Amino acid sequence: MKAMVYYGDNDARFEERPRPEIIEPTDAIIRMTKTTICGTDLGILKGKNPEIEQTAIEKTGSFNGRILGHEGIGIVEEVGSSVKNFKKGDKVVISCVSRCGTCENCQKQLYSHCLNGGGWIMGYMIDGTQAEYVRTPFADNSLYAFPDNLDEKAGVLLSDALPTAHEIGVQYGDVKPGDTVAIVGAGPVGMGCLLTGLLYSPSQVIMIDMDDNRLAMARQMGATDTINSGKENAVEKVMELTNNRGVDCAIEAVGIEPTWDICQKIVKAGGHLSNVGVHGKPVNFDIQKLWIDNLTITTGLVNANTTGMLMKTCCSGKLHAEDLATHTFDFDDIEKAYDVFKHAADQKAMKVMIDL
Amino acid sequence: MKAMVYYGDNDARFEERPRPEIIEPTDAIIRMTKTTICGTDLGILKGKNPEIEQTAIEKTGSFNGRILGHEGIGIVEEVGSSVKNFKKGDKVVISCVSRCGTCENCQKQLYSHCLNGGGWIMGYMIDGTQAEYVRTPFADNSLYAFPDNLDEKAGVLLSDALPTAHEIGVQYGDVKPGDTVAIVGAGPVGMGCLLTGLLYSPSQVIMIDMDDNRLAMARQMGATDTINSGKENAVEKVMELTNNRGVDCAIEAVGIEPTWDICQKIVKAGGHLSNVGVHGKPVNFDIQKLWIDNLTITTGLVNANTTGMLMKTCCSGKLHAEDLATHTFDFDDIEKAYDVFKHAADQKAMKVMIDL
Repeated sequence: MKAMVYYGDNDARFEERPRPEIIEPTDAIIRMTKTTICGTDLGILKGKNPEIEQTAIEKTGSFNGRILGHEGIGIVEEVGSSVKNFKKGDKVVISCVSRCGTCENCQKQLYSHCLNGGGWIMGYMIDGTQAEYVRTPFADNSLYAFPDNLDEKAGVLLSDALPTAHEIGVQYGDVKPGDTVAIVGAGPVGMGCLLTGLLYSPSQVIMIDMDDNRLAMARQMGATDTINSGKENAVEKVMELTNNRGVDCAIEAVGIEPTWDICQKIVKAGGHLSNVGVHGKPVNFDIQKLWIDNLTITTGLVNANTTGMLMKTCCSGKLHAEDLATHTFDFDDIEKAYDVFKHAADQKAMKVMIDL
Repeated sequence: MKAMVYYGDNDARFEERPRPEIIEPTDAIIRMTKTTICGTDLGILKGKNPEIEQTAIEKTGSFNGRILGHEGIGIVEEVGSSVKNFKKGDKVVISCVSRCGTCENCQKQLYSHCLNGGGWIMGYMIDGTQAEYVRTPFADNSLYAFPDNLDEKAGVLLSDALPTAHEIGVQYGDVKPGDTVAIVGAGPVGMGCLLTGLLYSPSQVIMIDMDDNRLAMARQMGATDTINSGKENAVEKVMELTNNRGVDCAIEAVGIEPTWDICQKIVKAGGHLSNVGVHGKPVNFDIQKLWIDNLTITTGLVNANTTGMLMKTCCSGKLHAEDLATHTFDFDDIEKAYDVFKHAADQKAMKVMIDL
């Protein structure tokens, strides 16, 4: 089969690979029909995750490439002997988080830290979804039956972007009716925070980014205010917009110190700072000012424990996740899709869909 | 009357001052019978709070000293015309946090950030409790009737140390039955975290400090394990004690980077880091490692919204707060009490009581 395979820094190859097979009785094999690219995939290509090669070499003595991708929808091709909830021919959403469902962490819905080899593993520790077929471990707990009235693009966004935004940004950020919210970073996950944040009826959502096109898209999707932090002082502007009080919830959706710093400067006493961005370096935490402020700061990898909830919200028409899908490519053009996604802001791209 | 008055860096004078008078109809005047010294008072003396002088000068053009102290118990001497819950002769606990009870923050129990001039103001923005008499603003909301069966020393600890430990350490840290907890810093507030944390039946409480006497006291009070971080590598030792998992809750009760750093290295995925320490400098936050760990990090000043709860717990005999009171001085010896408290570890002192 064809697959997009990571070999090392800036080395991804669209090439022929063997079809995956059932290994554990809890596995399923899915024939992919739609996948996408995540910022995390770009991070891997930039060499941010050397543990991929290291772990492979520790376990098997060599590293022979890793199929990228942890998002997508498809049709069940085959199931392991113990899989009960799915059968060949079922259409499914694949969650980016695989979960055993039985360990201490899974039992407290901390699926991202499954102690039995689950968590985020597809396109990372095992082969992923940017391929004609993928093996999904713990299939009963990690696949979702595809509802008839779910938009297929929304289905792809339910794999990761949408639950990440909702759980790590909005829920951890404790967004409530009437709240003032600032989202720093209008990429797919920041926009997902906007879309899922609006479900909780905040009174004000301020989107902050350096790209005017993305900010325009945010306004179209319901942001009450936007700030171009490349042109204005974002902190001062947020204070102006909030009567000098700051926001109830600041969501960091980039993963660099300057955006973290905006967040720690705009959150008000008693407020929440939810970090969704994937950081590569430590940040300075102004605890000498903030110790007194009764803040709650959260970090996290998606647990995908609200995927079902979000799916119902998409089906009911209250959440138009599909609006985040701006481009579509054939699988054979996946390298082009990567190029567009790498320069997403210039290309006016948000989430790129790849059809198989 | 006699009072302990702060004039500037390392300049505190035990001197004669005029007796306070009712200013607002919601005020009360309390004749102090017992007070104490807080680490924050030492901080003020070290010049950590230049805003004391600055604010006085901004408001009145000059700074004529500030009576220290925000803790203690006493007898109501006089009440303002609108005070309903207290009358002359009532014995009361004085909360360190004054609250209007009507502003947006008070209405969500964020009393420490009262928007009508409340919050922590006594011994800071207005004269405090290390005096024969004190004016307590918003008396109806900020005093507690003293139960017959409450130990007087416990009463003093209910002003600040105990609710701070409970709310900012234990409650924000989400300590639950069965949890593993580490408390870094075995001073009065760290010990308060131990005593109030035990109310929630954690399975393991590890106390970390550099003073063996304090660690012995912690074991006596219920710590399951102690680590002298001056002699052992605290991070490695905590990992050993927790099967390399780390703790559910790490409580920072010192306020310097090395203790913060221990906390961020020992908290497990899905865990809580509650910062109680008052910091003077920024800290390095290892977000490049911790973004993925689904952590909740909290900061805060006590709201004293659990003072009543803790008072009942003291009265029921389940919380022996009085055990933290190691020394007692007459008011005339308050300068000696300061000396002992400044060198608390050497003096085997925890909380020093001052009788009037």
